[in-house]
Amino acid sequence: MAEVNTGGTQKFRRIAIEEAFTIPEIADRTRAMTHGATEWSLDKVFLRNLYPDADPSKAKGGISYAAQKLQDLSDGRIADMDQFGVDMQLLSMATPGVQMFEADIATELAALSNDRLAEAIAKNPARLSGLACFAPQDPASAAKEMERSINTLGLNGFIVNSHTDGEYLDEEKYWPILEAANALGACMYIHPRCPPNGASSSYRGYEGILGSAGYGFVVDASIHAIRIMVSGVLDRFPNLKFCLGHMGEGIPFWFSRLDQIMGMYKAWGHLKLELMPSEYFKRNFVISTSGVEDHLTLQYTIDKIGVDNVMWAVDYPFLQTGPAIEFMDTAPISDADKAKIYGGNAERIFNIPKL
Amino acid sequence: MAEVNTGGTQKFRRIAIEEAFTIPEIADRTRAMTHGATEWSLDKVFLRNLYPDADPSKAKGGISYAAQKLQDLSDGRIADMDQFGVDMQLLSMATPGVQMFEADIATELAALSNDRLAEAIAKNPARLSGLACFAPQDPASAAKEMERSINTLGLNGFIVNSHTDGEYLDEEKYWPILEAANALGACMYIHPRCPPNGASSSYRGYEGILGSAGYGFVVDASIHAIRIMVSGVLDRFPNLKFCLGHMGEGIPFWFSRLDQIMGMYKAWGHLKLELMPSEYFKRNFVISTSGVEDHLTLQYTIDKIGVDNVMWAVDYPFLQTGPAIEFMDTAPISDADKAKIYGGNAERIFNIPKL
Repeated sequence: MAEVNTGGTQKFRRIAIEEAFTIPEIADRTRAMTHGATEWSLDKVFLRNLYPDADPSKAKGGISYAAQKLQDLSDGRIADMDQFGVDMQLLSMATPGVQMFEADIATELAALSNDRLAEAIAKNPARLSGLACFAPQDPASAAKEMERSINTLGLNGFIVNSHTDGEYLDEEKYWPILEAANALGACMYIHPRCPPNGASSSYRGYEGILGSAGYGFVVDASIHAIRIMVSGVLDRFPNLKFCLGHMGEGIPFWFSRLDQIMGMYKAWGHLKLELMPSEYFKRNFVISTSGVEDHLTLQYTIDKIGVDNVMWAVDYPFLQTGPAIEFMDTAPISDADKAKIYGGNAERIFNIPKL
Repeated sequence: MAEVNTGGTQKFRRIAIEEAFTIPEIADRTRAMTHGATEWSLDKVFLRNLYPDADPSKAKGGISYAAQKLQDLSDGRIADMDQFGVDMQLLSMATPGVQMFEADIATELAALSNDRLAEAIAKNPARLSGLACFAPQDPASAAKEMERSINTLGLNGFIVNSHTDGEYLDEEKYWPILEAANALGACMYIHPRCPPNGASSSYRGYEGILGSAGYGFVVDASIHAIRIMVSGVLDRFPNLKFCLGHMGEGIPFWFSRLDQIMGMYKAWGHLKLELMPSEYFKRNFVISTSGVEDHLTLQYTIDKIGVDNVMWAVDYPFLQTGPAIEFMDTAPISDADKAKIYGGNAERIFNIPKL
């Protein structure tokens, strides 16, 4: 840790686990798809701000600065990490990644992105680790890429940017993906994506404000996780491990409600599940703190799911590193728990070698 | 309280504030609209179970028993309250009430329902109180009915079953309703309704399990409240008071996230708001415990919004009274706080005379 030790004051290894990147090929194709697009979507509202078109004066919103940092997998990123004493970033493809593209292109770009990610990690193995992306549009090819990502490239798990064409991973056509993740024993981060068109009308009038990080992200990712919990796939693939950002996308708050309602459906014969939602969550899900920098909510979430299932994240470059560190440094929890959340749990869950 | 004192052991006045009823005219029209309907909606999936058609053998799901109790505004309901020592029910029109109907019929049935509700309360004024419904489909008439409901009928506030035709009360066409509520100083309960068709695709395959109480209710009601918070209507009508069920539909969990993201949009000039979302919530919203019978979540919510803003509810006849009372009786909070949540806050917020 010598290279990031900030004057001997850093007590904990800090591994940030929801840290975004992209590659030029994906950024350029995303930019081309979102500017002048005739078909509207919340994704496109979000992405037009993230990837401004060629004329910077046409860029709207303050989030576009982030896009410039997404493609830096080397010196600039490491310098930002050094500034605040972040030991390692666990990198993942920025939402929606390849999931907007045609299947063949998405499959190709996922592999290219995973190669680039592995190269970047090879250059800075003490500072970077990463989650492989894949193209759910072609589940069989995705399963092969997942196997290659772990066994050949040595990546640390998977990222899926929630729905693909408005569909979720519990659907049977995607089971090859779940089967691969289950067999490989690697954790899959379900990162939010804007809700699909068929689930977007409630944001009308507030597409930019509420359709993405404002609230739509939470809604889509939480529905994705709940579908997985009630679908029965966790009985079929019991070793699956999913990670949710944003303090578990609020699901720990809903344990008693979900258990109560699903318990009623079970009693009436509408659901056949071995466990209750809260039991699946505690067995098959872990979470990160990304974007919820609030001590009361941290403690509540620890009380709900256990400190071993909570990991720190920044959400670089979209959110600021300084406040994320201050939030954790000042958290009123024991040093032992802080060490787990800052890095110890990530080492275990994402197969990151200890120092 | 003599008539409900269960052997001298009842320390607190128990006022349950999310207790549903309907009238035959609304139930029959709802039943007719939902059976054999050609246009699909999550509402209709939910309501077909709630209001089985004429042949009981065709009824699906275990929730249909509830519909039979919805129309009892007298002896049967009072007997159920007596069984568990519920002193008072604050009644409100079961979701979606009149909000599926054509404007003229909805307006007429809202008035009829309010008349019936006032009659029922007049017969049992110590045991029943109630929230007036209205037809957002005709905002000008709704505002008049709201005024009549409070000033002539003496009802205790308002119920809106979330969206109407996929629209929410922040939209300018509904401002006459907000203006009336603001002027009358009466609290409006935003009860959930199934998400509208344009926001329903993410529930595909789980329409019955997740489209209503399973999760869709939460999503729709929380979006409704967040729209109200970010729209600016709380700057225009600062005396508005809304009530959310289900521990505030999860919004207290999202205070830090909402404030962070909306703070960014404010800084970038996309939002003009006097307060942050958490500040609006604490000023303009109160909540009930309905359906979230979990002590940790109760304490967390109290810590977030203050005990003066939390009220007890059962959600009769959909949920069971016994567990709702056990939840509150065994809550590890002071008797003073318990008295507020069980009834004291409801007396103040819904203008219910003290004993």
